Formats: sequence, structure tokens, C-alpha cells
Amino acid sequence: MRDVFIIGVGQTPVGELWDQGLRELGAAAIHDALEDARLERVDAVYVGNMLGCLNGQANLAALLADAAGLLPAEAWRVEAACASGGAAVRAGALAVASGAYDAALAVGVEKMTDGAPEQVTAGLAAAADQDYEASHGLGFTALSALLMRRYMEETGQGREAFAPFAVTAHRNAAANPRAMFREPITAEAFARCPVVAAPIGVLDAAPICDGAAAVVVCSREFLGPRHRPVRIAASAVATDTIALAARDDILTLGAAARSARAAYHAAGMRPADVDLFEAHDAFTIITALSLEACGFAPRGQALRLAAEGCFAPGGKTPISTCGGLKARGHPVGASGAYQVVEAVLQLRGEAGANQVKGARHALTQSIGGHGSVAVTHVLEA
Amino acid sequence: MRDVFIIGVGQTPVGELWDQGLRELGAAAIHDALEDARLERVDAVYVGNMLGCLNGQANLAALLADAAGLLPAEAWRVEAACASGGAAVRAGALAVASGAYDAALAVGVEKMTDGAPEQVTAGLAAAADQDYEASHGLGFTALSALLMRRYMEETGQGREAFAPFAVTAHRNAAANPRAMFREPITAEAFARCPVVAAPIGVLDAAPICDGAAAVVVCSREFLGPRHRPVRIAASAVATDTIALAARDDILTLGAAARSARAAYHAAGMRPADVDLFEAHDAFTIITALSLEACGFAPRGQALRLAAEGCFAPGGKTPISTCGGLKARGHPVGASGAYQVVEAVLQLRGEAGANQVKGARHALTQSIGGHGSVAVTHVLEA
Repeated sequence: MRDVFIIGVGQTPVGELWDQGLRELGAAAIHDALEDARLERVDAVYVGNMLGCLNGQANLAALLADAAGLLPAEAWRVEAACASGGAAVRAGALAVASGAYDAALAVGVEKMTDGAPEQVTAGLAAAADQDYEASHGLGFTALSALLMRRYMEETGQGREAFAPFAVTAHRNAAANPRAMFREPITAEAFARCPVVAAPIGVLDAAPICDGAAAVVVCSREFLGPRHRPVRIAASAVATDTIALAARDDILTLGAAARSARAAYHAAGMRPADVDLFEAHDAFTIITALSLEACGFAPRGQALRLAAEGCFAPGGKTPISTCGGLKARGHPVGASGAYQVVEAVLQLRGEAGANQVKGARHALTQSIGGHGSVAVTHVLEA
Repeated sequence: MRDVFIIGVGQTPVGELWDQGLRELGAAAIHDALEDARLERVDAVYVGNMLGCLNGQANLAALLADAAGLLPAEAWRVEAACASGGAAVRAGALAVASGAYDAALAVGVEKMTDGAPEQVTAGLAAAADQDYEASHGLGFTALSALLMRRYMEETGQGREAFAPFAVTAHRNAAANPRAMFREPITAEAFARCPVVAAPIGVLDAAPICDGAAAVVVCSREFLGPRHRPVRIAASAVATDTIALAARDDILTLGAAARSARAAYHAAGMRPADVDLFEAHDAFTIITALSLEACGFAPRGQALRLAAEGCFAPGGKTPISTCGGLKARGHPVGASGAYQVVEAVLQLRGEAGANQVKGARHALTQSIGGHGSVAVTHVLEA
């Protein structure tokens, strides 16, 4: 495989962006990424998006190629539930690795706030097994609640032990001008917050929001002196059963673990070599399980290590340094692309107040459907 | 780029398949394609699907990897409106060309009959520009009707001149045991059929239906004596404006023409070298425009050449030899994969009563959103 590099990143703010639709958000992120790469155009665009049907819009890749002035570029949409943005980056990397293009663009975009709450809930539940889970009322939060309850039962820890993930995410987001929630929260506020689906509280959960993030990828031959390349040292996707009930052990995110192992192997690295980790912290329980799947904590130990500050700024493996899904926001089909954008900024030394000093290797992991699909990237400065 | 070959094809019958859902249809096509390739498994699955939200099912690639026993394979969905199946084949080809996998699988699947008619209509309209077309009532058929009316105006031909496309499609489908409509129709029946959106009649249009088709692709190194490989000599995707109103000339399908030109160039071929053409005959007008975009007829001449029998069995360039979208059926996100499956059967000499003698080169073209995206493949025996 040819080596693939990231030479441009772009992102919109994340939030309830009532004055912008899929078209405006996607085109803005594409424009920023091309400008960052000092390119006028690319000939291939891969669009990560999960909930376009909420907006009545299929064929979103052609729409964005059009809106961004990139016609007649190759363009199609990639969907892997909440991992769609990560999978779009994977598609772009494959296109360049194949030799089909010397440069390509991946953009993740989501516009969730146009849907009525029950539509958004139903749309997110579609990531689960419709026949055996979602149609019986087991939605996005309810399934995560089952995982969290089981984790608490097995480890003997209370809900308050998950606080460090939310507290750190909000603290990191306070320094990110594009984050949705820029107010720090306390462990006390976390403990007292309203319950959504017990034991999940509102501060365990990422918000409904809008946003778009884009990356320009290219071949080694394409690199010029104007670029500040970050190499995609590994890109790996794995799947697990779509129904939680079909798993031997619901506390092992098999797809996350396998894609992480494959990525470490391809990059010739171990977890200890990772300087920062962009985690899929859609719920605090998913953060814990993802950390364990990626080898940053032994099974059942993620909360203990979090309490010790391992994943906070200055810790052994800082996570979600720009606020993560929890506080930067989780426009679902865009989040995997935001993770890559934020990791690139870290590896370039451009992460501002949240900069991890001397960061050379970053891991990003985008998870869809309660672990039924995971996309893991290793990025190298 | 590494050469990519097709070594296995599978397809379900097309029709109103009330006893099968996305899971059963997709898994059946995958199973058949793997068996045809004499493989137990592949490690990557790319799923073409457009209307999954009608079924309340996102994350369909993980679901099918699971249902087909292919976990923990890489799996994500590809969507490019009605060209989704073609784009999934493209994704599989890129994955193998990149060196990421020696073998991969692309499957197109659609389950349209579970939706209420107004839901299906709205779902298909989402391929158009929601902000500027669909939300004003310009749906799938209405937009094609605008194209047809303009074509009739420019060429001075009546609706009856489109009859050969529908008549040939139904005649071809009569010999295809997997086709939805196996009854031949007459030009008189075509002329008399009920109007859907003037000038489009019900016999101009492909049906709402269910189905799945799959192909196994692999590298040259992977080929063994047990395989009967068909080479993907070219694979090209191009886009055009999503809104018809934004085009300088609505009778030139720019994306179709550009992707065809790119495919001919990559394959070192001309239209005259093509032994059969799997056309995107969702409406008779789209057949005509696709034939002209691909160089099989000069502008405005497709109907005249059709009347002369150029596109019928035994003609210069037989099209839609298994019945096409019109009569085999058009399960939208699957159709592009069906085209490739049927072309492979022709190139292997396994097309039965519809066999094109001595076929060595086939062109397939899958079109989404009234020409806003087109996927063109050249296959070589």
C-alpha cells in the first residue's frame, strides 16, 4: 500500500446551528480543509453522514461536491452509524493508497437539529438491530445504559466514578473555540445531573448537534514544501454483532479491540507509544470500554486510572483533548472526522491551550452501533 | 493501481419479496457470491444501499457482515442514490487495488416494499436537491418527466418512439428467471399504458421492488485455477449539479458522459469495442440519455437507433440483456450491483437464452439523482 498523508484539515464550530444546513456546513469544512492544504481542488470526495434522511437528503456527496465547487469529482457517501466520519477518512485513504488519486478529501457532516426529538431518537436507534432491538424500544441511550449497568455490577463501582471523563471533556472544551459546551463542570454537578436512562445521566451523554469536519489526504509523491504532513500510519475497521444480546461478553467491545490491534500492528506500535487518544466518548461508559479495548486500561480498570488522572491533560494518555464527543459535541456522522482533525492539530503543535507537548503519535477511534463497527486510525507527525 | 478481478457473483430474485428483509436478501446474495468464488469468507464488505431509513436500519454493513457470518470483517455502507450499488463495487475495487485486501465483497441491497407508497416516493425524491427541488414537489418521476418532455421537444419525437427500450427490456426479462416482470409487452401496450407523470407512463418506468446482488473482487495474485475471472478494466465515478435547473443543458448527462469517457480511456477502448451495455434504464428517457452519454448514439439519435434494433439482442450494442432496471427490476441501491453481476455472467458465457455470442467487453453504468452522479465500469473477459 502507498503511504497516505493528511495535508489539510477544516472544521466548523459544533452546536445548534439553526442558520446552516448540510450544504453550508459541509461546504465550509471542505473549503477550510482545501485552504489549509493550499489546494484549489481535489478529484474525489468521500462524505461521512449517518442521518441524512432526517434532512430528506440522500445523494449528499454529489450535493457537497456541487456546493463546494468540486464537480465533476468522484463523490459518494459512507455510512457506518456513528463511525461514518471515521469510515469516510478510511475511504479517502484507500482511494489514495490505491493510486486512483494523488489527493482526495473526506468530510463528515451531520445536521441533527432539524429533526423533531422523536425523529432524532428513532434515527439514532437505527444504528442498532431494528428487528431485534430498536423496534422493541431499545434505543441509543437505553442500550448504553445496559452496558453501563453491567459494568458497574462487574466492577462494583458507582456512577460517580465515571465523573472524570465528563469533567475532563468539559475542561478541555473550554479552551476549544469550536466546542459546543465551553463551561467546566464539577464532579458534584455530574453526580446530581438529571437521569436520562438509568444509570445514564445527561452529563454522561454527548449532545444532539450540528457540525462538519474535513481532511485532505494525499500520496507521498504529492507532498510539497508548503505542506505540513501527518502520516496515516494505520487505518483499520472491524465489526462485531449488531445485537448486544448476541455477544458472549458485552463488556468487551470486540470490533474496537480488533481494529485497535490491527492498527497497532500496522503502525508497529504499542498503546504506550500513543501520546494522545481521541476517544469515542458518546457516553462515559463507551469511553471506559474504548480505553480498555485499545489497551490503555486493563479490563475493569478504566475508572480507576481515570481517577488517577491518566487520561487528563498531563496524564499518561490524554484523551479527547479538544473536548471530545461529550463537550466539543457529537454531530454523529461528523465526529470521526473531527477526531482526525483534532489529532492532526495536536501533531502539528497547533492545539493551543490543550496542546500535548511533543505529541508524535495519536490514536483515534470512532465507534458505531454500540461497538458493532469501529474505525481506528494511528496518525504520526 | 493493482488489477482487480471479479471471481464470484450472486443475486436474489427481484420482486415484491414480502417474506424477506434487508438481512435475508443481503446475506443470500453474499452467500451465493462467495460460493461462486469458492471462498469461505472475505475480510471486507462494502454495502450499497439507498433507502435503509425506510426500514429503520442504518449501520447496514455491520448488520450484513454479521448476518453473513463474516465478522469481524471491515464493513461500511456506500450511498450514491440510485448508483449506490455501482459505487459499492467501486469501493470494493479500490480496497483491493490499494493492497489493503486481496479479496473483498461488494453487495447492493434494497427493500422498498416495506415502506408506504408516500414514504418510498419521498425517499426516492431525496436523491434530488431537497432545498430547491424535492421540497417543492419535484420527485423522482416528475424530474424525469421534465427531461423526457424536453427531449421530445428538441428531437420532435413522440412518446411512442421510446417503446423499443421497454419492449426489449421485457423480452429480455422473459428469459431471466430472477426478473420481476417476465411477460413480454407490445409497442401498442406501451402506447396505451396509464400515465404516471406526463409524458412518463407506467411502462416507461422501473418498478418499486426488493433484491440484492453481490460480487467478490480480488487481486491478480489471489486468482487460482478454480476461478473464472472477469477483469475490471475500468471503474470511474463522476458528478454533476444536483439540481437540474443548474445545468447548462439538461439533455447532456455530464456525469454519465465524463465517467464513461474516463472509463473508456482507462480501458483503452471505444464505444464500438463494447459487446453489451447494462444501462440505467430506470425511465426510458434515462436509457436514451445514457446511451448518448456513453457514445452509443449521437445526441438526439438514441430513439432512431433503437428503432433500427441497434440495442436489441443481435443488434450492434445489446443493452439490459437480463431485463434491465425496467423489467428485471430496480431495487435502487442494488441495481448497480445487478448490472455488474449480469455483465459478468455474459462475459463468462453463462447468460443462457440472452447470451451475447462471443462477448468480451461489457460496459455498466449506474446513475443516481437524475445524472448528478454516475458510476461506470468496463468489464473484460
